[in-house]
Amino acid sequence: MENGGVASSWNFKPNATLEFAANLTIRGVLGTIMANLDHRDTRPTIPLGHGDPSAFPCFRTTPIAEDAIISAVRSAQYNSYAPCVGILPARRAIAEYLSRDLPCELSPDDVFLTVGCTQAIEVIISVLARPGANILLSRPGYQFYDARAAFNGVEARFFDLIPEKNWEVDLHSVESVADENTVAMVIVNPGNPCGNVFTYEHLAKVAETAKKLGILVISDEVYAHLTFGNNPFVPMGVFGSVAPVITVGSISKRWVVPGWRLGWLVTNDPKGILKETKIVDCIKNCLNVSTDPATFIQGAVPQIIGNTREDFFNKTIEILKQTADICYERLKEIDCITCPSKPEGSMFVMVKMNLSLLEDILDDVDFCCKLAKEESVVILPGSAVGWTNWLRITFAIDPSSLEKGLQRLRSFCLKHAKKQ
Amino acid sequence: MENGGVASSWNFKPNATLEFAANLTIRGVLGTIMANLDHRDTRPTIPLGHGDPSAFPCFRTTPIAEDAIISAVRSAQYNSYAPCVGILPARRAIAEYLSRDLPCELSPDDVFLTVGCTQAIEVIISVLARPGANILLSRPGYQFYDARAAFNGVEARFFDLIPEKNWEVDLHSVESVADENTVAMVIVNPGNPCGNVFTYEHLAKVAETAKKLGILVISDEVYAHLTFGNNPFVPMGVFGSVAPVITVGSISKRWVVPGWRLGWLVTNDPKGILKETKIVDCIKNCLNVSTDPATFIQGAVPQIIGNTREDFFNKTIEILKQTADICYERLKEIDCITCPSKPEGSMFVMVKMNLSLLEDILDDVDFCCKLAKEESVVILPGSAVGWTNWLRITFAIDPSSLEKGLQRLRSFCLKHAKKQ
Repeated sequence: MENGGVASSWNFKPNATLEFAANLTIRGVLGTIMANLDHRDTRPTIPLGHGDPSAFPCFRTTPIAEDAIISAVRSAQYNSYAPCVGILPARRAIAEYLSRDLPCELSPDDVFLTVGCTQAIEVIISVLARPGANILLSRPGYQFYDARAAFNGVEARFFDLIPEKNWEVDLHSVESVADENTVAMVIVNPGNPCGNVFTYEHLAKVAETAKKLGILVISDEVYAHLTFGNNPFVPMGVFGSVAPVITVGSISKRWVVPGWRLGWLVTNDPKGILKETKIVDCIKNCLNVSTDPATFIQGAVPQIIGNTREDFFNKTIEILKQTADICYERLKEIDCITCPSKPEGSMFVMVKMNLSLLEDILDDVDFCCKLAKEESVVILPGSAVGWTNWLRITFAIDPSSLEKGLQRLRSFCLKHAKKQ
Repeated sequence: MENGGVASSWNFKPNATLEFAANLTIRGVLGTIMANLDHRDTRPTIPLGHGDPSAFPCFRTTPIAEDAIISAVRSAQYNSYAPCVGILPARRAIAEYLSRDLPCELSPDDVFLTVGCTQAIEVIISVLARPGANILLSRPGYQFYDARAAFNGVEARFFDLIPEKNWEVDLHSVESVADENTVAMVIVNPGNPCGNVFTYEHLAKVAETAKKLGILVISDEVYAHLTFGNNPFVPMGVFGSVAPVITVGSISKRWVVPGWRLGWLVTNDPKGILKETKIVDCIKNCLNVSTDPATFIQGAVPQIIGNTREDFFNKTIEILKQTADICYERLKEIDCITCPSKPEGSMFVMVKMNLSLLEDILDDVDFCCKLAKEESVVILPGSAVGWTNWLRITFAIDPSSLEKGLQRLRSFCLKHAKKQ
């Protein structure tokens, strides 16, 4: 066979782990779902699949953030390479910003700038990777962690979130899967994909469990402050003196600029355990062999954080509160979908499908593929966040599009309902 | 011991490979050298160590590039996440730009956007990583490749560049270190650290050798078009039909904006071997689990490439030609330093030290540390690029600072000369 002949005359082969890892990502799964869109459908596609509302005019970022970037570019002071940890004024601004919600003041040396929260995750998983290590991830959860664990040869083990308890961590399941090779557990708060917000009391228990197991807590707070229910946002760093906490975050969600790729990795570690165990040195080493966020975007950070007005944040929260309400109410009207609790934060709600009420739907992926094809609505199948036959629905889009999308979802479910 | 007790009660440990990898980077070594600077010295520090002249007013980027960024930010069209391969208009502009120098037209699908050339290197090494694989790197060379190979568990093997032959690749040494597990060889053209430019004829021989060995050529062309000697820049992609070529590059050097972090990985593969062997799919998979360049910088690429005028490029080349001349002439006046050939491209020259003419210098690192301390001049020791007791000197700084730096270097060498 000619093809076999050509391939076999070359020594190089693709890294198989990357295929496995890529199949875990939301970006990959959404690509599969969107391939089913029917381009003859003249209605606008309603994107309820991803966590990026920036294309909607009502979610446009503040002009203050744009001005900060423009003034950094015009200054020509930020065309050079930055230090691997990031430039000091940006690290200082982020330390001060995060310290507002913490009992201890962070130092700029606790803050490491990254290319979005994505690179912060790449870095911390790389740092913790050692032969035999395992990491505890939630089901459902944000599978980018699973992908990077696979990439780095770290075993992923899973604990449950409990829908009946407003998606609290099942701490018994955490303890049951951990062993002496467990290095960390990951929580996402406010929750992706569940739209929950952990209470102060629950986070305290998470910290105690981590301490008992001798592991660190990676707290993904990329949706920090995007809360609109009863529970206020509490950063996990509050409990950094119980067990060391690594917080990852970014300006992507609160400023609605995910494309700007400016994130951070922060050590919340008043007892200096991460320094003593050389984890901090290793973070610097990892950043030393990794790419950096654009220097002028780093240069704009002090102005972005310092000058943004509360009314911009409030406006975003108002819209999210409104769209979360719409989502919750409309989903109640759909028989084959159950919403265990009203979302209180982030941009998502996690809902359960009742397949027995549908007649020609195999599973969540089949549901989402057919929904895309027939109704031009994109929703993420729960299997992409670790739970089959659930769905993750984004409500962070403009209210009228959301109404349309949920109407189409309802029509779709009615059309495919089992005849009684 | 209390410390031991605290550390041992936690399961996590740093990834030791990262320390090894980080110690290979220029950023790491320059940090060590610069720690020796004497802050009581009131003279300005002369940076002859790194490849980033953007802080000097004479190397300021064109306002056209700044305007392109600003208009992309103001449009609010680029606040969202980008596709993992990059946005189409940017990939198309880069394909057209690179095709000007190639026999075959590149397609936008041959172009993958990365967070600087750095991430392009991260990606290609990750893609080729498989148990037992080895990769051929040059000595001297750009050790970021060594660092990423270590990170990914790929064995680095080394071939020589020949100073007496204008730093051509010793193709015999390439063949002698390669075996059936060799997946690729890396060349850097124009050369870092050597300042050479490979001829068309030599690149043709590199391609034939790669074909014979069944390996691909990774051609690092981040200094493309920065040539000012007899040899014009020829992209390795010209020979993509002999052996598959992956070109990595960026806007960092030609536009003097390394801090903007916009690079690319390009497949030059008219015979479709990289598609057939699934290397292209694997590149996409790797990008799918990696962070991205800022979307608005991607959005600015068509304007940056399309609108920049030749006189901007010519001005940079004029300065580099002048500073390369200054450097070559002044170094001739220093007895303990030999410059094998006049630099013709990039921003560097690689020179040999004669330690027997110096009385209290242990090696290249000691030389550079003492030079920093006594003369506030920063030079990169050759060991950081794989050759002990050589030096890599940057001439891409403004001419008057360069003159001062080289005068101080000469004084330093005179002061430390062995008394005859």
